[in-house]
Amino acid sequence: MFALTVQPRSRLFHGHEWVYASDVKNVLGNPAPGDVISLRDTKGRTLGSAIYNPNSQIVARRFSYRKQDLDAEFFLRRIERAIEHRASLPIDQKLCRLVWSESDGLPGLIVDRYGDHIVYQTLTMAMAQREDLIIAALVELLKPTSIVARNDAPVRRAEGLELEKKAVYGEAPELFEIETAGLQFQVDMLEGQKTGLYLDQIDNYAAVAKLAKGRRVLDCFTNQGGFAQACALAGATEVIAVDVSEPAINLVLQNARKAGVSIGARAENCFDFLKAAEKAGDSYDLIILDPPSFTKTKMSLNDAMRGYKEIHLRSMKMLQPGGILATFSCSHHVSAGDFRRMINEAAVDSKRHMRQLAVYSQRTDHPIVSGIPETEYLRGYALEVMGGW
Amino acid sequence: MFALTVQPRSRLFHGHEWVYASDVKNVLGNPAPGDVISLRDTKGRTLGSAIYNPNSQIVARRFSYRKQDLDAEFFLRRIERAIEHRASLPIDQKLCRLVWSESDGLPGLIVDRYGDHIVYQTLTMAMAQREDLIIAALVELLKPTSIVARNDAPVRRAEGLELEKKAVYGEAPELFEIETAGLQFQVDMLEGQKTGLYLDQIDNYAAVAKLAKGRRVLDCFTNQGGFAQACALAGATEVIAVDVSEPAINLVLQNARKAGVSIGARAENCFDFLKAAEKAGDSYDLIILDPPSFTKTKMSLNDAMRGYKEIHLRSMKMLQPGGILATFSCSHHVSAGDFRRMINEAAVDSKRHMRQLAVYSQRTDHPIVSGIPETEYLRGYALEVMGGW
Repeated sequence: MFALTVQPRSRLFHGHEWVYASDVKNVLGNPAPGDVISLRDTKGRTLGSAIYNPNSQIVARRFSYRKQDLDAEFFLRRIERAIEHRASLPIDQKLCRLVWSESDGLPGLIVDRYGDHIVYQTLTMAMAQREDLIIAALVELLKPTSIVARNDAPVRRAEGLELEKKAVYGEAPELFEIETAGLQFQVDMLEGQKTGLYLDQIDNYAAVAKLAKGRRVLDCFTNQGGFAQACALAGATEVIAVDVSEPAINLVLQNARKAGVSIGARAENCFDFLKAAEKAGDSYDLIILDPPSFTKTKMSLNDAMRGYKEIHLRSMKMLQPGGILATFSCSHHVSAGDFRRMINEAAVDSKRHMRQLAVYSQRTDHPIVSGIPETEYLRGYALEVMGGW
Repeated sequence: MFALTVQPRSRLFHGHEWVYASDVKNVLGNPAPGDVISLRDTKGRTLGSAIYNPNSQIVARRFSYRKQDLDAEFFLRRIERAIEHRASLPIDQKLCRLVWSESDGLPGLIVDRYGDHIVYQTLTMAMAQREDLIIAALVELLKPTSIVARNDAPVRRAEGLELEKKAVYGEAPELFEIETAGLQFQVDMLEGQKTGLYLDQIDNYAAVAKLAKGRRVLDCFTNQGGFAQACALAGATEVIAVDVSEPAINLVLQNARKAGVSIGARAENCFDFLKAAEKAGDSYDLIILDPPSFTKTKMSLNDAMRGYKEIHLRSMKMLQPGGILATFSCSHHVSAGDFRRMINEAAVDSKRHMRQLAVYSQRTDHPIVSGIPETEYLRGYALEVMGGW
């Protein structure tokens, strides 16, 4: 049996499941990358079972408090439990994340369902080595039409894994249309963003749209137009959607047609658009900012916050009293405090007195685990400019 | 005109509205406690209008970026705007907070509506001196049957104000019954907790109850039994409600009878109850912790966190895999980070792997203002014990 002794300062003792290279005291036996190892404290007490990869910054990821192998029965049981958890949630069952890594006790495995089709990613060596077991469990539990492996996330390189995407079961569908809550999307399992859509935001489209009735709406970083469609359906007087990607804007227009709504879609860099709009003295009643994560690492946090602040400042200046800003951050590197502080600075600089109307989070099919702060990554607020101040 | 010059380090420059004694550079004229003053920076630039009270730690509270008097027209306009804001929210309009101090640009004024009856509190000298204008505005805007002044919050002493409670318009009703979303409560405008009920939690009763179906529920610090009733109505198999107050427990039983549900109510200190229950090896499927604020000041934060942790640890030990803890903190002194850390420590000590199911906040009739972190004070989480770990 392979065993890794962790230093007393390890976050394992505070509810986390990761062992960093700097927290390793020693490793017994000669485990290979992807092997299951036993974790111990310096007094020799067992701390549970983990997957091992000395090539990663995160050398071990605990997945059980007990002795546990990564066998067929394990995958079947954990994946089944993850699927049952989703089935208990009030979300669209045909369009959801079924397995989300640490949050389901399967570190480095992500599984999404798009109707009868399944997409998965393996992001750790241990999961990548056991894709056959994972596929077998998915086939048994879900009886899907197809399964696609989207193993093209650059983060795989940190584990020593190649990037690839391919159909691994059945035949991968062409680009297909999918509808949820009246919103139209198109799913490209092999070529789309992430695994196709931003499932974590799906319910927030309708939540923000509750504020859109009778308003002129600007949806920045619109991607496939989720917020824009929802706002138009909810009775916005006009909706402008902006995204730097020309293909995305084409999808927005097709989706809008299918949803039966009118959206003014612009393929333009959102920073440039906001700068020009603010200089031109434009005004909106509801502005939505849902930018991609500007920062993948702590290193570039300051740059990210500068970028965030710029678009917030410009947006606030285009809002009059009663106007609403709905803004999102999707990086766990940006803490709730950082995000709030930045919003607040932009409010001070734009001389806007902002009152919070709503808080948004990632959809519950991306469950937050108490001991792993990294699992909480999507935050959003709706803020109204207070009048007569 | 009275003027106060603030030091450059003041939080006013970061979106806050309060001037602490230590942030005062000088005061021009000789303003009396409760007077309106003009705020300036050290370069003589105007920062807006504030209410003044040199006897308070918070010497000035800004209520406008402009020159503004506290006259009849001002109260009418601000209170009307606050009422309109509530009318736009998806909340029970007959049972809500109409004015919430800084969040409505009326620092130190709180107004609650219980059907045709209004209760207010003044917590600053300036508001206390202008109660006639406030009452006149409330009568004009709401045409209430009665208005009660609940000026018995101890925090008034810091402003140099006496404590008192009395009917100031119409005749204060006796204890009366009120219903919201199937839940029964009794309102005692002159003698009840706070201004009667915990309006900030009203919508969370139903939100937590969504998790209660088929479960054995323990509701600690139950007060009038809001969570307990909601869980029973939602199909809990059994509900035990505990509160240290005998009168509260009597209300719980009356409310339960009227709501047509069965609740096992116990008048007992919740710390003692949880300690005995855990030692007896009791087990529940859903435990709700909604304690009063253990800390009113930063000074006693450590004691508060110890108290919080104890009840969390005992509760978690009584939950099996699949069991749920719904827990609340209602002090702005306890940051989201503090609260999460404490929960996490209790999870580690009880060897429970906890997954978050939901986040709760104060109801939106208690609006959070971006620049004033103190306005965000109520936080809650539902956490599930993950099985098979």
